[in-house]
Amino acid sequence: MEIKFCRHSFVVKTSIVLPSDTNNYGTLFGGRLMSYIDDVAAIAAIRHARAPVVTASTDSVDFLHPIYEGNSVCLEAFVTYTGRTSMEVFVKVISEDLLNGNRNLCAMSFLTMVAVDKHNKPTPVPQVVPESETEKMLHDSALKRAAIRKKRKEEA
Amino acid sequence: MEIKFCRHSFVVKTSIVLPSDTNNYGTLFGGRLMSYIDDVAAIAAIRHARAPVVTASTDSVDFLHPIYEGNSVCLEAFVTYTGRTSMEVFVKVISEDLLNGNRNLCAMSFLTMVAVDKHNKPTPVPQVVPESETEKMLHDSALKRAAIRKKRKEEA
Amino acid sequence: MEIKFCRHSFVVKTSIVLPSDTNNYGTLFGGRLMSYIDDVAAIAAIRHARAPVVTASTDSVDFLHPIYEGNSVCLEAFVTYTGRTSMEVFVKVISEDLLNGNRNLCAMSFLTMVAVDKHNKPTPVPQVVPESETEKMLHDSALKRAAIRKKRKEEA
Amino acid sequence: MEIKFCRHSFVVKTSIVLPSDTNNYGTLFGGRLMSYIDDVAAIAAIRHARAPVVTASTDSVDFLHPIYEGNSVCLEAFVTYTGRTSMEVFVKVISEDLLNGNRNLCAMSFLTMVAVDKHNKPTPVPQVVPESETEKMLHDSALKRAAIRKKRKEEA
Amino acid sequence: MEIKFCRHSFVVKTSIVLPSDTNNYGTLFGGRLMSYIDDVAAIAAIRHARAPVVTASTDSVDFLHPIYEGNSVCLEAFVTYTGRTSMEVFVKVISEDLLNGNRNLCAMSFLTMVAVDKHNKPTPVPQVVPESETEKMLHDSALKRAAIRKKRKEEA
Amino acid sequence: MEIKFCRHSFVVKTSIVLPSDTNNYGTLFGGRLMSYIDDVAAIAAIRHARAPVVTASTDSVDFLHPIYEGNSVCLEAFVTYTGRTSMEVFVKVISEDLLNGNRNLCAMSFLTMVAVDKHNKPTPVPQVVPESETEKMLHDSALKRAAIRKKRKEEA
Ligand SMILES: CC(C)(COP(=O)(O)OP(=O)(O)OC[C@H]1O[C@@H](n2cnc3c(N)ncnc32)[C@H](O)[C@@H]1OP(=O)(O)O)[C@@H](O)C(=O)NCCC(=O)NCCS
Ligand SMILES: CC(C)(COP(=O)(O)OP(=O)(O)OC[C@H]1O[C@@H](n2cnc3c(N)ncnc32)[C@H](O)[C@@H]1OP(=O)(O)O)[C@@H](O)C(=O)NCCC(=O)NCCS
Ligand SMILES: CC(C)(COP(=O)(O)OP(=O)(O)OC[C@H]1O[C@@H](n2cnc3c(N)ncnc32)[C@H](O)[C@@H]1OP(=O)(O)O)[C@@H](O)C(=O)NCCC(=O)NCCS
Ligand SMILES: CC(C)(COP(=O)(O)OP(=O)(O)OC[C@H]1O[C@@H](n2cnc3c(N)ncnc32)[C@H](O)[C@@H]1OP(=O)(O)O)[C@@H](O)C(=O)NCCC(=O)NCCS
Repeated sequence: MEIKFCRHSFVVKTSIVLPSDTNNYGTLFGGRLMSYIDDVAAIAAIRHARAPVVTASTDSVDFLHPIYEGNSVCLEAFVTYTGRTSMEVFVKVISEDLLNGNRNLCAMSFLTMVAVDKHNKPTPVPQVVPESETEKMLHDSALKRAAIRKKRKEEA
Repeated sequence: MEIKFCRHSFVVKTSIVLPSDTNNYGTLFGGRLMSYIDDVAAIAAIRHARAPVVTASTDSVDFLHPIYEGNSVCLEAFVTYTGRTSMEVFVKVISEDLLNGNRNLCAMSFLTMVAVDKHNKPTPVPQVVPESETEKMLHDSALKRAAIRKKRKEEA
Repeated sequence: MEIKFCRHSFVVKTSIVLPSDTNNYGTLFGGRLMSYIDDVAAIAAIRHARAPVVTASTDSVDFLHPIYEGNSVCLEAFVTYTGRTSMEVFVKVISEDLLNGNRNLCAMSFLTMVAVDKHNKPTPVPQVVPESETEKMLHDSALKRAAIRKKRKEEA
Repeated sequence: MEIKFCRHSFVVKTSIVLPSDTNNYGTLFGGRLMSYIDDVAAIAAIRHARAPVVTASTDSVDFLHPIYEGNSVCLEAFVTYTGRTSMEVFVKVISEDLLNGNRNLCAMSFLTMVAVDKHNKPTPVPQVVPESETEKMLHDSALKRAAIRKKRKEEA
Repeated sequence: MEIKFCRHSFVVKTSIVLPSDTNNYGTLFGGRLMSYIDDVAAIAAIRHARAPVVTASTDSVDFLHPIYEGNSVCLEAFVTYTGRTSMEVFVKVISEDLLNGNRNLCAMSFLTMVAVDKHNKPTPVPQVVPESETEKMLHDSALKRAAIRKKRKEEA
Repeated sequence: MEIKFCRHSFVVKTSIVLPSDTNNYGTLFGGRLMSYIDDVAAIAAIRHARAPVVTASTDSVDFLHPIYEGNSVCLEAFVTYTGRTSMEVFVKVISEDLLNGNRNLCAMSFLTMVAVDKHNKPTPVPQVVPESETEKMLHDSALKRAAIRKKRKEEA
């Protein structure tokens, strides 16, 4: 069975918040950020699976700080855990006030992406192997998150 | 204290999924849908609060069915519960294959929106009063969801 | 011959006016609104015909009130009359100042959509049957509007 | 009283139809075209008035030919007639199949733009003077169109 | 061998600079302008070649004046020189402050577009023949620019 | 005089090429890529200067490989050289076929960004200090490129 390291799927995306990305009060929409998060998570997952992916779920997200027009937003993503056809992707969002360098951790998110074949049917993915301390910690806690997701879906 | 009914904030938004909304496999992005969800939730919350709002959090979302190019997506949102400055908004997403009328429940989501003043500080909102069975059921279960969110935020 | 009711094609779309939707003076473009109008009219028509449609014409539109950034715009559309392959769709646009609840009727429009097959050739549509007073009134006046359109096109 | 010639407000805009401009059947949306039409009409009117403008109305538009992905669309606009604060702008739309040079007249439209001051109130515009045959013809028939618009608005 | 005149590929595109086209300081992005430049250059080249084209290179561009929100931007493009499969396109950008008529030459650019077949392989184009003084001058200096490009590409 | 290292302005942006980013033949537009390049260059320059910036010029760019729909595009940028108010930024573009991991160097570009104050007037920037071999090499060759730009601007 093929294996891959977390760092193989590591993706970085930095953007500047433009007027057209903000609400009528000059701060980035939560939904726009969710869209960026899904974006990088998809790149990380496709790179891991070398196959098309769809988003199966996103865990809850707390928006800790507003992100203002003219700030930069830096998203980092990588695959933390793999099932047979699904991958858990961790995304971290850091904003920077480019005019003074102040940074804030704005959000963290876990998404579940599923690799699919040409008929949009789930298809197996390589196993992921964590190396760094952070990677190992996220990998180990993944089973707990998966159980919560399962329970959540059953209750719904 | 001013009160308002759930139906006062009720919002409907129907869109057609265009080529530019889809990934390279012809289905709507999870992130694009999250963006639509945040959109209608914000309209519902501003209408309830008659004040600007920011998204404080979105609970987890399961994407139950792919939504294809050419399908319509119908989102419904309303305020289900209010704290002092925060509002819980429920959003339901239903897709329709416009060529044959088949519909799917694609996602449901709870968001917490906070009313803010000119300095982006939390500001009080009217209390919401549920009327229908569904509204009452969602209103009653809101405290449990709020507790989970609080615990989640503290643990992070 | 298959028949359908007006309410079967009824579509609602509520949006918030964002900075990127407005001109340099903070009000929604007439053209942007025309684009939203075409959008909902197309969804109503496809839902009625269960076939792809193209816009054959839009009748004249008067823009009665400016719509400001941060306002919501609510469009309602349904099929009012059917020919062999064409459908007349009525669209009503209401804006709301979300911060105080003031509403304005901003525009009304009649569009003619034609159902097409795979070769972009006109294809028959079900007959529409009006039920409510408004539906009946719009249905009855449709022949007059169709005659005006015909004359207009011949003169051009 | 200041006067200006039609050619002073003459504007040309050529675009290529991209995948993101088309519906799910590969042809340009009617609404997208209306948006382009409003765009060039606004440039022509601002250039004539040297003041901000809003769209007061668009006359009916017949879409004579589908415009396909990859085609170019060329719009030409100029002010044909002026009232005290309003301007009638004529817009002509010609598509070109860039791979073989075939051209079609796809639509023609008359819009009424009103010059506004800082408080969005109507403000006077220079008088327009036609020179060419076409300009004179459109200028002379403008009064008739203005009367129809007035009657239409009153009846609504 | 088929020949064509410069004027056959002549394209004009006028746009108004909207809030969503500008940076956080109210002026048009250099990158947005480069995107407009590529756009018109592509239309001119496809019209000359009657074939799909790709951008092989853009020469250096100096941005001489800021372009403000609410200004119009007028781009003119035409094919100045042809090789076997490549075309040199000249683009000129003029901004206008629509409220007072002041114009600035903001940028000039030379792009090399290559005609391609269905497999994205270079395919021959008609020869271009200059007529006016400007066309002849640009045509004559084209060989020098081509030599610089070739040297530049080899050195890189 | 304040100094800063190249790595302080280092920016990475990874995107996936969507249908709406591509031309009618499924490959990314040169102009769209130029827009991405300007984007990351601006972030790098603002981060170095801690001040707003405008693009003064872009040097020539050769597009070495087509970038297909579904590929990822990774841009890296950092400040290589500083004058009094201007910064040279180097941008490197690498595409990846996400389904098999094949990568191509698609373009390299040097842009000159100028820091500006509230009146859009040039304002001094910290001096940049190169550390790595690549940084030193690009820093040392910058004077030659600056001389070419100066000559070019004077001749035009
Ligand atoms: C939401 C925000 C205003 C809360 O600010 P705060 O300093 O924590 O304010 P408070 O502690 O007074 O909380 C205000 C309310 O928000 C609620 N809240 C705060 N964080 C929350 C979260 N993550 N989930 C749910 N509710 C939350 C509190 O419970 C409180 O509710 P109540 O007034 O009904 O009792 C602040 O965290 C913020 O600005 N976040 C960024 C919002 C944003 O820009 N979103 C889009 C990001 S792209
Ligand atoms: C257009 C508008 C400014 C007119 O305001 P008003 O209070 O009716 O002003 P007036 O009665 O003084 O009319 C001003 C001019 O507009 C003309 N006008 C008004 N409504 C018109 C219509 N529907 N069609 C054509 N002309 C119209 C009048 O004839 C008059 O022309 P004149 O000065 O050349 O004689 C106002 O209706 C408005 O703001 N509408 C919304 C504009 C807008 O935001 N459009 C985009 C919508 S998304
Ligand atoms: C442009 C491209 C088709 C050239 O392919 P190639 O294998 O180098 O083909 P050739 O060597 O036969 O060159 C074809 C023509 O292009 C010209 N050309 C190639 N690279 C060039 C460059 N960087 N600048 C100017 N002209 C160039 C050649 O001189 C030749 O011209 P001619 O036929 O008139 O004599 C190829 O490099 C490519 O596909 N690049 C990417 C294009 C693209 O996708 N652009 C957008 C990127 S986001
Ligand atoms: C860039 C700009 C601010 C320079 O203004 P200016 O009056 O020429 O200012 P200066 O002569 O003092 O030059 C300032 C710096 O810019 C550099 N510069 C000016 N034009 C340049 C060019 N075309 N290429 C490279 N550097 C240039 C100068 O060398 C000088 O550098 P230094 O301070 O490090 O020695 C001005 O030309 C401008 O605003 N251009 C438009 C910028 C813009 O809006 N870009 C996007 C267009 S869509």
